[in-house]
Amino acid sequence: MFGSARGREWVISSDAFLEDVHFLARAHPPEVVGYKALARATSDLAAMGATPRFFLLNLALPHERTGRWLDKCLRGMAKAARRFGMKLAGGDTARNRMIALNLTVLGEIAPGRAVLRLGARAGDRLFVTGKLGAAQLGLEIVLRGISRQARWRKFLAPHYYPVPPVALGRWLASRMFASSMMDLSDGLSTDLTRLCQASGVGARIWADRLPMADVPRALRRSGLRFPGPLHLALHGGEDYQLLFTVPERLADRIPDSRDGVKITKIGEMVRGHGIELCTPDGKSTRVAPQGWDHFALRK
Amino acid sequence: MFGSARGREWVISSDAFLEDVHFLARAHPPEVVGYKALARATSDLAAMGATPRFFLLNLALPHERTGRWLDKCLRGMAKAARRFGMKLAGGDTARNRMIALNLTVLGEIAPGRAVLRLGARAGDRLFVTGKLGAAQLGLEIVLRGISRQARWRKFLAPHYYPVPPVALGRWLASRMFASSMMDLSDGLSTDLTRLCQASGVGARIWADRLPMADVPRALRRSGLRFPGPLHLALHGGEDYQLLFTVPERLADRIPDSRDGVKITKIGEMVRGHGIELCTPDGKSTRVAPQGWDHFALRK
Repeated sequence: MFGSARGREWVISSDAFLEDVHFLARAHPPEVVGYKALARATSDLAAMGATPRFFLLNLALPHERTGRWLDKCLRGMAKAARRFGMKLAGGDTARNRMIALNLTVLGEIAPGRAVLRLGARAGDRLFVTGKLGAAQLGLEIVLRGISRQARWRKFLAPHYYPVPPVALGRWLASRMFASSMMDLSDGLSTDLTRLCQASGVGARIWADRLPMADVPRALRRSGLRFPGPLHLALHGGEDYQLLFTVPERLADRIPDSRDGVKITKIGEMVRGHGIELCTPDGKSTRVAPQGWDHFALRK
Repeated sequence: MFGSARGREWVISSDAFLEDVHFLARAHPPEVVGYKALARATSDLAAMGATPRFFLLNLALPHERTGRWLDKCLRGMAKAARRFGMKLAGGDTARNRMIALNLTVLGEIAPGRAVLRLGARAGDRLFVTGKLGAAQLGLEIVLRGISRQARWRKFLAPHYYPVPPVALGRWLASRMFASSMMDLSDGLSTDLTRLCQASGVGARIWADRLPMADVPRALRRSGLRFPGPLHLALHGGEDYQLLFTVPERLADRIPDSRDGVKITKIGEMVRGHGIELCTPDGKSTRVAPQGWDHFALRK
């Protein structure tokens, strides 16, 4: 049972995290599976500006995952729960051929302050947090089978242990700075297209302003064909950073960083639809959604 | 977003409904899969005495289930949503090798009125709703491959389209008649054992009082080896009826039926632990939990 403190509302979100669809049991450590399952669900709360409170876990596992694997998975989930201030409030378990974690998360927010993706207007400024493409770079390292090499380890963190900027989301919502907001789960090109469609506007982004993840030269020269930083920033998935718009008159109130989270103005909303990418040479191109579409669809 | 009406609390429950674990895609019609997924989640709300309000659906499907199969499945779910007064409030979708439906349900209740399974005391009277074993009988018909024969069709309904007694659960909770309550999902022997353990008491049930599903003579003589009515009543799963205890001084206030739902006093709670089954000849035997443990564990 949970009541609402006087003058508070609840927001709720539910997310599936499935073997071979969202993660690979052979490639991803169990701690990572547990942590990410909860972190990505929490990201939806951050993107509304809510304070995470409770979660429910529906866990389906093959028999051979019920021992050590499960212990480690739950340890990873407990790490995320501590980090985001959440308590387990229920759920169920079942045996299954594949691993499936379904997370339902509940957050609290002041009435009327939840930010949705449909409030952007032409003229609003467009912002993102963190560095774009960093999580995809980590995934690419995993998929190429070199994730156990010590020198690439530091590039795995954004993919293994994403940190949705919960406090920043809450601040943007409580100050009513953001006219629209969502989390970046499937890549900027895909998620910004969704925000544009929900709000009935288009977007213009500046290529030289995008905060891109560093792709170390040694990786690019490794012969393993890594995507470049711009491609990762535009289409890389799972960053779980915030994408939000701010009315022009309030845009100066947004700092370059807050609580250690980098904030970057990357463009503006325009009349029309779709995404226009402007390069410093004055040219512009259209960007189609090409974001992350899960392992199942890559086959 | 959802707030609480003044002086109301929320209860929440989350349940997985998985192919080959909880249903068989080849044997169960898609309407049934959709209906049951929501009905069984709603049963948890009924068992607390809450009023169902919202649900979230996480749907994972193989590609070949996205057309007609999905349409029919959602039609079945919509039927359950109408029947129980629930609105879809969110969720997500993913491709998967197997069908997986995860349902999160939210219900409202007056503060402090939710009934749990841990409040039974020695001396309390034990009640059930409906007929026990009726759903299992339907499942047995499905498993024997004769579910398409017209003459057995009427025995499928309790298995295909269970109706948790939501209004009755709410009435019991609002009048504070029930000292403990839960839904019968895995069979009386298993669920009553859980209630006993949670409350720290034992139970004595009367074999001749159990409201048993009728097993038609033609089925028993079919050579397909159907379990008998007592076995079905004690161990059959998925009835989604209510199991509840009432303090002795209030037990007379419980009618034999209410809103068309049959209510039967089947025994009493006693000091100690475990379940004792008393037969009219004055003998008694211990009953071990042998309830429904899903398809995966039958292999």
